[in-house]
Parts: sequence; structure tokens; C-alpha cells
Amino acid sequence: MIRSRIVTLTTDFGLSSGYVGSLRGVLLSTFPGAVLADITHQVTPYDIGEGALVLRASVPTFPAGTVHLAVVDPGVGGDRRPMILEAGGHLFVGPDNGLFTPFLDGPFLAWEIDADRAARGPMSPTFHGRDLFAPVAARLAAGEESSRMGRELRQPVRLDWPRPDREPRRLAGAILHVDGFGNLISNIPGEWLPVDSEGFALRIGDQVIETLVSTYAEAPAGRLVALVGSSGLLEVAVAQGHAARRLGLGPGAPIDILWDDPPDRASASGR
Amino acid sequence: MIRSRIVTLTTDFGLSSGYVGSLRGVLLSTFPGAVLADITHQVTPYDIGEGALVLRASVPTFPAGTVHLAVVDPGVGGDRRPMILEAGGHLFVGPDNGLFTPFLDGPFLAWEIDADRAARGPMSPTFHGRDLFAPVAARLAAGEESSRMGRELRQPVRLDWPRPDREPRRLAGAILHVDGFGNLISNIPGEWLPVDSEGFALRIGDQVIETLVSTYAEAPAGRLVALVGSSGLLEVAVAQGHAARRLGLGPGAPIDILWDDPPDRASASGR
Amino acid sequence: MIRSRIVTLTTDFGLSSGYVGSLRGVLLSTFPGAVLADITHQVTPYDIGEGALVLRASVPTFPAGTVHLAVVDPGVGGDRRPMILEAGGHLFVGPDNGLFTPFLDGPFLAWEIDADRAARGPMSPTFHGRDLFAPVAARLAAGEESSRMGRELRQPVRLDWPRPDREPRRLAGAILHVDGFGNLISNIPGEWLPVDSEGFALRIGDQVIETLVSTYAEAPAGRLVALVGSSGLLEVAVAQGHAARRLGLGPGAPIDILWDDPPDRASASGR
Repeated sequence: MIRSRIVTLTTDFGLSSGYVGSLRGVLLSTFPGAVLADITHQVTPYDIGEGALVLRASVPTFPAGTVHLAVVDPGVGGDRRPMILEAGGHLFVGPDNGLFTPFLDGPFLAWEIDADRAARGPMSPTFHGRDLFAPVAARLAAGEESSRMGRELRQPVRLDWPRPDREPRRLAGAILHVDGFGNLISNIPGEWLPVDSEGFALRIGDQVIETLVSTYAEAPAGRLVALVGSSGLLEVAVAQGHAARRLGLGPGAPIDILWDDPPDRASASGR
Repeated sequence: MIRSRIVTLTTDFGLSSGYVGSLRGVLLSTFPGAVLADITHQVTPYDIGEGALVLRASVPTFPAGTVHLAVVDPGVGGDRRPMILEAGGHLFVGPDNGLFTPFLDGPFLAWEIDADRAARGPMSPTFHGRDLFAPVAARLAAGEESSRMGRELRQPVRLDWPRPDREPRRLAGAILHVDGFGNLISNIPGEWLPVDSEGFALRIGDQVIETLVSTYAEAPAGRLVALVGSSGLLEVAVAQGHAARRLGLGPGAPIDILWDDPPDRASASGR
Repeated sequence: MIRSRIVTLTTDFGLSSGYVGSLRGVLLSTFPGAVLADITHQVTPYDIGEGALVLRASVPTFPAGTVHLAVVDPGVGGDRRPMILEAGGHLFVGPDNGLFTPFLDGPFLAWEIDADRAARGPMSPTFHGRDLFAPVAARLAAGEESSRMGRELRQPVRLDWPRPDREPRRLAGAILHVDGFGNLISNIPGEWLPVDSEGFALRIGDQVIETLVSTYAEAPAGRLVALVGSSGLLEVAVAQGHAARRLGLGPGAPIDILWDDPPDRASASGR
């Protein structure tokens, strides 16, 4: 696999401590030619599903041969395996805990990292990001082969994400994840949705939502709405409220969408 | 125009999502030699005036030939024009909504970006940052000519910012912007102000302020003060309060300053 | 001294303003070949001790010849000296106010920066980061000699940090710092601590703590605990509370630790 020299960083470390600085230091010490690019360091702590959704949205924008270092790792120090994944032309380094689920749909190769061959010295029990994953990411970015740092790993952990269904004027999906605001994030891609709310009806639990907004700001406080959220997926939200609690629903809850007109979205507000 | 290979990023996306990561991915995919430098991603959402003030303060520190990608874009998907601007040796890419007002005082050239020639594929209705502005910024940084990506744009949108007046011991200006804390940010450059508060008097609305502080922390809570804020401009603030609401004033409100001694500032507290 | 071309940035500026962008602009204008790497910009404002602890944890991960630009500078504009420090193969630029205390234990060389030789033009009284420290850092990273930008500085300011003592099953130390959450951060390195809490007893003030946790999340709210914190040092904390206030203790307070079994840590939860 070719290499782009780019290493992206995705963590739940936050930006106040020196943790992220330490990752950068190890990456640049190990491979001075690395080009570092943050995705985010503000994944909700320990939220593997959120980390996976952020990676799902951002990874495809990077060139082939990019190494994605991702550390959302509640199980560090336990028996979760440290992993290298190659999929879709990209390389991934991090814990084998489901974080890379979005990249396991097509063909892939995976390795369990052998700490004896790959760590940069004695490992801290709580900071594998610095002591194991960063040096591995840097060596991969420098061109080293994944197979030199571990042995094949056959069944990477997957988050239990259902797949959505698409018919001409009907979509069926399910909730993947509840984010820190209580928003219910589904598996339905935003591109599948209709242009506007005309004749739109989304059924979730015992509720029907007939309003598709583009931003939370558009809806009055307390209103249950549907929108395409930051990960490019349909979300069900309560403006200034907590949808999961209001509906008593969580991951796995089914969603059905029906509408009248064919999709060709062109709405407002954005990035 | 020469190119520095640097692309700066200024947005209101925040750092929690993968949005900024997606910009970085597109920039590095389009021009692998780009050097990315964040200005900030924490402009108050949709606050074009604040974005313009941040750019005003930071852009001049970068070398000539730098491309400044700036996306504070409440009108995305509507009819605001996507723009390239060349001014003062720098290049700017973003929405034509006033964000680049500080750079329209001298000579400039502007183009309306032609999405058919410049987008990196089908455009999301709400994420022109990723699909249009980032690829254009990267191509400019790589040396491509602005004229190849659009047609001339003659009247870029300007924020309605008045100009300040300067006499030996008198300054006259006006409020440009109310920030998220209610601070009234004026058009008077900090360098124009006197050394200390001796004989200093600032008149705004029906108030006279005789205290120039260097930081908000210096003033007791509730006190109306003047200081040079983060954008290098004089601000009127209420310590731990909301000056705009207290004074009932906003953009356009005139400010007059008089003092006794000639300026030669050297105060305390800082960066 | 060799140079890695890397310049790290550590400040208390926060990320909302354009201040950090201005540092980046000056660094890249002065030395276009610089590789910029943030450590953090979210040191608690004016908290020199916290800045020193962050640097202590992150600096050693960077390659020799790296320049560390650090600006936590409550005394800017006063008589604190601007400093270059060379220690342990690294270069440091910032105020001589104790920020670099962790690097003064071994041999070092220090210079007081001569603003006339080193500033990039007229200096703002409150933004030496941009006008003095960033240009010096960039010139050092480009290979210039420290001695060309100032004169020798013999007694850099040190934070008054006591040293910890280590015996086979006993540690003695003291509190260095109270962080923004009221956590009491000691001078005892995490590596010195025992594997688990079996027979562990930490005495501070009139309290005895018998629980070593790996994360704040492990402890019930209000419980007084010991843990190894973000700087790699032992901390005394109250889960969801304020340890310094609860115990009425602060910097200088002694800590004694006794335990039964020899250390060989391998606990859970992390980075």
C-alpha cells in the first residue's frame, strides 16, 4: 500500500492537557516527515460509537495511504487487542474495540499489534496512545509494512450497527447511537432524504415527525425534529432537549420514512 | 501572485465534530504540499462580523501568497456567491457575505467561483466548505490562477463598518460589533490609545468611562470599562456583565475619546 | 545544538480568538520551513505551574533540537525577562517566570532576549508572544544561535518545587500545584506507585487515603482518592469535588505513602 505521509489524529483526550502534544511528539520523533492532521480530540470520553461516526465522515476526504491514528479506548490495559487495519486504501491504528466498524464493510486486512516489536519502550498502563499506537502509526506512515508489527487478526470487533434499506419513496433504518445531547443518530445517509418536508413523515417509536430542519436553530425549543447531523446521517432530536429520554429509545430502535416527492435536496444553512 | 503553500483555516464549525477534519482531508488530498495553519474554528456560529475581526487581526502575520480559507456561512445553499479575493498580497476563499471586509479598503481583485469548474464533485447543500471552498483554496495554494476558477466579481459584499478619526488628543469612532459576551467592539485601533488612564475620557451613549484596563480581570464585576480586546481594537465592556444590554447600544453607536497626555503605551498583562 | 525544525506551542490563549493564529503566522513568516505542533492552548489563564507541568509531560516526547515556544505570561509588559533556554537537547522560548522549571534540574544555558536584536518590529505591550517570542522561536528553529539574540542569563526564575523521596516501600513528597478543579498535584511520579491499592496508604494533612484509582470516573462522587493524573504525577482529588478546599491544603503540603507489595503497575482505563 502506498503512503501519503499524513497521519490523522482522532481521540477523546480533549485539548486542555498535554496528552495530544505527547502524541504529536512521538509521531514526529518516530517519523520526522509525518504530516499531522487533527480530525478531532473532542470525542465524548469513552464513546466508541461517536468516534466511529466521526471517522466515517472524515476519513474518505483524505488521500489513499493516509494513516488514521484513533484512540477512544476505555479498555486500555485490559484485554482488548491493539490493531492495525488496512481498508479502502487507508490504514488505521488503534484499539480493536469497534472504533473502525465503518471500514469493515468491504475487503480489509487486520493485524494484532505485537507490543514487543512495536512499542517505543516500557508502556504506561494507561497511555497506549503515546507508547504503542503513535509509534506504530508513525512507522506505517514512513512506509513500514503492517505485517512486520503484528500477526493477522481475523475477527475485528464490530459495533452492532444495522444496515438501512432504501426504496423509491420509503427508507427504513435504525438508531445507531445516542450522542451526548440525547440526539438519536440513525444509519440513514443524509443524501437519501427528500428535498423538503412536503409530505415527509418519519415514524420512530410511537411518534411521527413531519419536519425536516437543516439546523437545530431552526426549530422552537422542545420540538421533536429530524435533521442531517454532523456525521452526515439522519438524526432525531429535540431542540434544546434530550430526544432519547423523551422517546425512551436508544440504539436499535427502528425508523421508517415515507414521502411524496422524489429526492433532490437543496436546503439552507451550513458549512 | 506568488504562493506560500500555506492555507489558513477560519470557521465557526467548532472542534467537536469531524467537519474541520474533512476540510483538512480535502485540502491535503487536493494539494499534498499544503501547509495547514488554523486561525480559529470557534468563531461564534454565524457571526460574520466576528470572523472578519479575527481575520483582520491574524492575516497580516502570515507571509504574502498565503491562502485564507474562511467559512462563516449562514447563507450556504442560498444565493450568496462563493468568492475568491486577492488583496494586500493574500488570497481569500469563502462566501461573499462580508467576511473579508477588512481587506477591501485597498486595491483588490475578486472572482465569483464557478462551481462547475471548481467543486470536487457533487456538492452537499450544506457543506460548501468541504465541497467547494477547500478544493479551491488548495488549488490556489498549489499555484493555480484565480481567474481559472470563476469570473470577475465587481462589488463584493461589505459589512457596514464606519472609519475612525484621529486627532492629536482626540479620537472618534463607532461600534462595529457586539460579541457573544455583549462587549462593544469599536473601530478604534488599540495603538491609537494613550498610555494610561490619566485624564482619559471615553464618551459612549450617555456614559463617560475614565478607566482603561488591560484585561477584564482588572475591573471589579459590574464596572463599565474600556480595553483593547482580542482583535486589537478598543472595546467597551462590563466586567462579568453585558455592555450592549446595559447601555442599550449596538453597531453604529459613536465613541469619542479625549485625553491629556500623548500616547506611548506600556501597560501590563498579556500574551 | 542541532535543530528538528519543529516548534511546539503552549499557551493560555484559548482557541476562540485569533491569537494563536497570529503566533502561527509570525512563525511561518519568519521560518517557512517550520513544522508547528501544538501542545495546548488551554492552560488555565496565568497558571504558570500548570504550564510547567504540561511542558514537563510533553517535551520529552519531541525529538532533540525542538524549539518549545511557551507563553503563560501574567507579567508581560512588566520587568520579567524574556528568555531562551537550552536544556536536555531542547530549546525553550518564553518568559523567565518559572514556566521552564522542570528543565532546570540538569545542565542548562540561558539567555535574556534582547528585544532590540530580536523583536520583529515595534512591540505591543501586551502581545510579546507574537512580537518577540514567536520570531525568536522561528529563528532558533531555522538554526540561528541563541547567543546572537541575547546575553547570558544566570539565575532563571524557578517555581518553588520540592523534590520527592523514594525508599523501597515508602514515598515522601509534597503538593506542587492546585489545578482548576481543586486537585492537589504532587511531585511524586506515577511510575513510583504500587500496582494496586492492597495495603496502600497515603497520608495528607489529617487524612489517610487507601484507594488508588486510575480515573476520576472510578470513584463515587465526594470520595477522596489518589490517582496518577494527566501530568504523570500522583494527584489527590475529590471525585466531582474540590480537594484543596475540602482538605484546606495547597502547594507545599507534605504527602507520605506506605504500602506492602513491590511496585509493578498494570491497571486499567486510558489513553
